[in-house]
Amino acid sequence: MEVPMDVVTDGGEMQRRVLALREAGRRIGLVPTMGALHEGHLSLVRRARAACDIAVATIFVNPTQFGPKEDFSKYPRTLDSDLAMLKSEGTDLVFVPEKDAIYPPGFSTYVEPPAVATTLEGAARPGHFRGVATVVLKLFHLVPAHIAFFGQKDFQQSLVIRRMVCDLDLPIDIQVCPTVREPDGLAMSSRNRYLSAPERQQAAALSRGLRAAQQQYRDGVRDAGVFRQEIERSLSDAGIQQIDYVAVADGYSLQPVESADERTVALIAARIGTTRLIDNAYLSE
Amino acid sequence: MEVPMDVVTDGGEMQRRVLALREAGRRIGLVPTMGALHEGHLSLVRRARAACDIAVATIFVNPTQFGPKEDFSKYPRTLDSDLAMLKSEGTDLVFVPEKDAIYPPGFSTYVEPPAVATTLEGAARPGHFRGVATVVLKLFHLVPAHIAFFGQKDFQQSLVIRRMVCDLDLPIDIQVCPTVREPDGLAMSSRNRYLSAPERQQAAALSRGLRAAQQQYRDGVRDAGVFRQEIERSLSDAGIQQIDYVAVADGYSLQPVESADERTVALIAARIGTTRLIDNAYLSE
Repeated sequence: MEVPMDVVTDGGEMQRRVLALREAGRRIGLVPTMGALHEGHLSLVRRARAACDIAVATIFVNPTQFGPKEDFSKYPRTLDSDLAMLKSEGTDLVFVPEKDAIYPPGFSTYVEPPAVATTLEGAARPGHFRGVATVVLKLFHLVPAHIAFFGQKDFQQSLVIRRMVCDLDLPIDIQVCPTVREPDGLAMSSRNRYLSAPERQQAAALSRGLRAAQQQYRDGVRDAGVFRQEIERSLSDAGIQQIDYVAVADGYSLQPVESADERTVALIAARIGTTRLIDNAYLSE
Repeated sequence: MEVPMDVVTDGGEMQRRVLALREAGRRIGLVPTMGALHEGHLSLVRRARAACDIAVATIFVNPTQFGPKEDFSKYPRTLDSDLAMLKSEGTDLVFVPEKDAIYPPGFSTYVEPPAVATTLEGAARPGHFRGVATVVLKLFHLVPAHIAFFGQKDFQQSLVIRRMVCDLDLPIDIQVCPTVREPDGLAMSSRNRYLSAPERQQAAALSRGLRAAQQQYRDGVRDAGVFRQEIERSLSDAGIQQIDYVAVADGYSLQPVESADERTVALIAARIGTTRLIDNAYLSE
């Protein structure tokens, strides 16, 4: 059965439609994306459909969250296939704004993100979370949903957004959904398509390291240094030399811990060739 | 007739009530205040009642918009009389949050205000508009109104809020309402009660200077320097020596102009004793 899916490019129209749906008593679920969709995104759409009456996806490659030397201009843009995938998942509404509509001339109001943004990705990518927080706040206003769905793969991002929502009293629930992985464990990411075949093989070492650390946790290890060493060994065994960080941190504050417990997360950022990949996992999972 | 007025202190309850009123089709008008109410505030409440179904006022002395050497701790707090005044004006709902509910432990997300915040008050009071923008955004989330009402007396504040609303796509209209003045022209302000009797007399020089500049405009003067000189003379004739600024600026960008036109505003900040007063007027009015 052909299901209709509306694509909206105007922010004002999007906002009016969603406010009208809210006033008609419909529950709205939002899945913000930068396009180049994969199974991870689609799993969020399925969650939104299950939990809400109306599933809205947004596709916008947000320039303000890329550093000047990062991959904004070459970030994959696959709009036609994105829309086909969203339609086949039963998405009701897709918002595809123009860059100038999101950042019009004279735009100059930003979100100064919460303290949890300063470490890890925030340290490696100055300004990244300022851009993320700003665009996500704008999308929450343009698509005033009841629930927004994010992937755990961007773990720190989910903490930044949760804390922003709390600090700014936004009337929206944030649901963080499990990372979707390739058969060999590689976390799905739009950036995986940058990888050459040998790099793609190397990339499996990130999740392999995380699984090894989880096995250590099951075996009774608690010392953060031991987990870090195990993960770093997985990476170097695969020939990955450019490690931005391997962190063992509290899953709420992202502060490093010395001894792991149920809420401890291991987080990795590493470069394979010119491609920067991140991954994470709760050690107790 | 006794009209009921509900006073709410819990942010979550406030938000639920206003969202429910919205979903019931009621138009909500918001008047954010720091209390110490005077006729200026009450004129905003009357506008809200006229334009909307439900008039909501908030009373919160916002610590983040005061500098470390400013008057946060001595800022007048007159809650009982504020509530009586709001009730007599037919206000439907009043939000009086606790400081810790607005800024809970770990609070760390702020609004980086738009470029128009950098000059004049922003230069004289570092961090002031960051605090204003942050608390106003929070209040717009906690009281998701259709229209918010602000006084023209805080002219730059109204520009900062308008630009923030535009940049962040907030679904709220901002209405800026005329400054309400004492019989001798002094702009009403909660800080006027700091003035001694002789200082109160001096204070009339601010509006006198603005009226003189408006008369010059009617007489055909356009040179910004002439207006500034006239206003500065009014102040110094009254014995006011501590002038923070006298500016003749564009009413949208607040950039200084050399030649005045219909949208040119004159703005003053001056200290009388230890009290800092501001005032402004369109020259063409």
